[in-house]
Amino acid sequence: MPSIAHRGELMPPSPIRKLVPFAEAAKKRGINVYHLNIGQPDIETPQAILDAVKHTDIKVLEYSHSAGFESYRKKLVEYYSRNNIVVNANQIIVTTGGSEAILFAIMSCMDPGDEIIIPEPFYANYNGFAVAAGVHIVPISSSIENGFALPPIEAFDKAVTPRTKAIMICNPNNPTGYLYSPEELQILKEICLKHNLFLFSDEAYREFCYDGKKHFSALSIEGLEQHAILMDTISKRYSACGGRIGAFVTKNQQVLDTAMKFAQARLSPPSFAQILGEAAVDLPADYFDGVHAEYNARRDLLVKRLQAMEGVTCPMPGGAFYAMAKLPVRDSEKFCQWLLESFSHNGATVMMAPAAGFYATKGRGSDEVRLAYVLNEKDINAAMDCLETALKVYDK
Amino acid sequence: MPSIAHRGELMPPSPIRKLVPFAEAAKKRGINVYHLNIGQPDIETPQAILDAVKHTDIKVLEYSHSAGFESYRKKLVEYYSRNNIVVNANQIIVTTGGSEAILFAIMSCMDPGDEIIIPEPFYANYNGFAVAAGVHIVPISSSIENGFALPPIEAFDKAVTPRTKAIMICNPNNPTGYLYSPEELQILKEICLKHNLFLFSDEAYREFCYDGKKHFSALSIEGLEQHAILMDTISKRYSACGGRIGAFVTKNQQVLDTAMKFAQARLSPPSFAQILGEAAVDLPADYFDGVHAEYNARRDLLVKRLQAMEGVTCPMPGGAFYAMAKLPVRDSEKFCQWLLESFSHNGATVMMAPAAGFYATKGRGSDEVRLAYVLNEKDINAAMDCLETALKVYDK
Repeated sequence: MPSIAHRGELMPPSPIRKLVPFAEAAKKRGINVYHLNIGQPDIETPQAILDAVKHTDIKVLEYSHSAGFESYRKKLVEYYSRNNIVVNANQIIVTTGGSEAILFAIMSCMDPGDEIIIPEPFYANYNGFAVAAGVHIVPISSSIENGFALPPIEAFDKAVTPRTKAIMICNPNNPTGYLYSPEELQILKEICLKHNLFLFSDEAYREFCYDGKKHFSALSIEGLEQHAILMDTISKRYSACGGRIGAFVTKNQQVLDTAMKFAQARLSPPSFAQILGEAAVDLPADYFDGVHAEYNARRDLLVKRLQAMEGVTCPMPGGAFYAMAKLPVRDSEKFCQWLLESFSHNGATVMMAPAAGFYATKGRGSDEVRLAYVLNEKDINAAMDCLETALKVYDK
Repeated sequence: MPSIAHRGELMPPSPIRKLVPFAEAAKKRGINVYHLNIGQPDIETPQAILDAVKHTDIKVLEYSHSAGFESYRKKLVEYYSRNNIVVNANQIIVTTGGSEAILFAIMSCMDPGDEIIIPEPFYANYNGFAVAAGVHIVPISSSIENGFALPPIEAFDKAVTPRTKAIMICNPNNPTGYLYSPEELQILKEICLKHNLFLFSDEAYREFCYDGKKHFSALSIEGLEQHAILMDTISKRYSACGGRIGAFVTKNQQVLDTAMKFAQARLSPPSFAQILGEAAVDLPADYFDGVHAEYNARRDLLVKRLQAMEGVTCPMPGGAFYAMAKLPVRDSEKFCQWLLESFSHNGATVMMAPAAGFYATKGRGSDEVRLAYVLNEKDINAAMDCLETALKVYDK
């Protein structure tokens, strides 16, 4: 029997999926599991954009342009312009989810053996794309103590080697919820110019910023035009995760030309969800107000509940819909498993993502968890009742 | 400005796209261009499967399972069983088009520097996936003289090195239209067992076999269960190219587990087109009869017209919807460009794919073209009128 690739062995398991069998077993025992472990929003997809798909009259479901329908890219120019990102339709490649935009950035700008600096903790699937492309992630540490702010400039300087090609950020951040300030983006600009690096910016959660704070895109940093690559997706923005539509956006023509070759090799992004994405740009201006208010209330409730628990640290996240919490336990993975295997409160329990999987440095985050506030307030309260009770009885 | 990856420079341009600007210019001059250059069928997507998407009541457009909806995979088990391919739902990973199935096969089974043997000419996008994964394609030659039959076993033996991990075939073949016989598949089995290689089988055109010949899947070869990986797509089968739904199918559990990690990293395949694919399995049994008769008539007409032209060689293809023809010209790329730039007949011209881009060996195929018979008979006749006239006046 031929053997699989070493590449496959390098792929790390998802920090979420390891616990799935335990959650399934709990459900089989009749226990209600509150899922705070994944970023699958419960918010309904706007009916108007679902209707756009229903009402399209397709005769032949053809390949679209490899960069996506021109009509959609033109609409995206409008959308970006409203967000202070000035691009034209030829600077956008529509991708199959944000995932493919990340892959195109790495494949176009990095060779096997090259290094990319990412502040940890970071979105765990970056590991998978790095393994696929044969590049190395060099983590630098952000910490729960200062709310996961950008590491100091010295940490970047120290991490740069002759193989470093890029820095990757997620802003607002998954898993930490941290929203980078304009000052922090200026620091990133300085580092990228000094060491001639690309800045890959994952802005999946652009619309989810709280406390009146504004989002600043990497693509709007003056003087960084040839370095910045925006990796975007409609998944969270319109609760359209299953559509698999994202975007790769840059003003660097050489990078665009190269990414287009990868885009042409896979022919085209999915047609149906491009129609949905195009319609989404025309949603009423107040669409996000309701969604925003809902997430804001959930965040406030979740963090208030966590901060009221003895021994728990939870910095207030500025964006996205995740919070990281430090728990008074030695091993959060064991605790999360125990919650599913051996605990229930009022017939229910809570599932969270152990944070170690979001860190590249071994041993870091072992007492932390990530919570996605993707449930309504009543369920968040019930989930927090479970966690609070569990921490009291768990043998730490 | 940071530089792009060497990987990007290695990506070859598509053999089709180079001529696109010339086709666009011709259209601007008012010339009707018959597109025999791409495999985008003009056949209408069955209304019943488009309706399945329209009639779905989605509240939240969620991620599907990373391997695809379970209901769809169960339906696919039915479909494969009707095609003498016995698999269960856990042996199927639904992919984003056949493209992603190819990428998963290469990524899961091959490391950078590994080699894959492919009979040339071959589907040009295999080059792109090989470059992305850092693996090397080792071509062995099939030839228009014997209708592109499988190269002799000695050619494979000679091409195998310690780095060889797999053989890739496309059956029926794009670009040659060649349909491998059961005897040829047995030869492939022998080689794979002898050298312990995977057999990657791209069966996108399974339904398109002519002259009463039957298709045999690599997954049905007894004794090759642990070696065979089927890379499939609904794009051509149901004229649903824009859906971007394919499948990665194997009975090798280790390969499946590895491919699932790549599948999980990109979260899920597109949801809308999975609904379409699921409905397609329930199309009436005679659905393919009409499609089949149509392509059969087109093939017969196209090949008859080509064979009647002086100096043209065109073996009768047994499957798919492509034909390769050797033309009495020195450089088919220049000829194809000339057809678009400097020729018209009755206000029309024809666009074909120069064949050199389907060969990995430099210099091969330079007097050949690939023609996709994706137009109706009237248009094929008109296109052949153009070609016949052009060959008479072209300065070879």
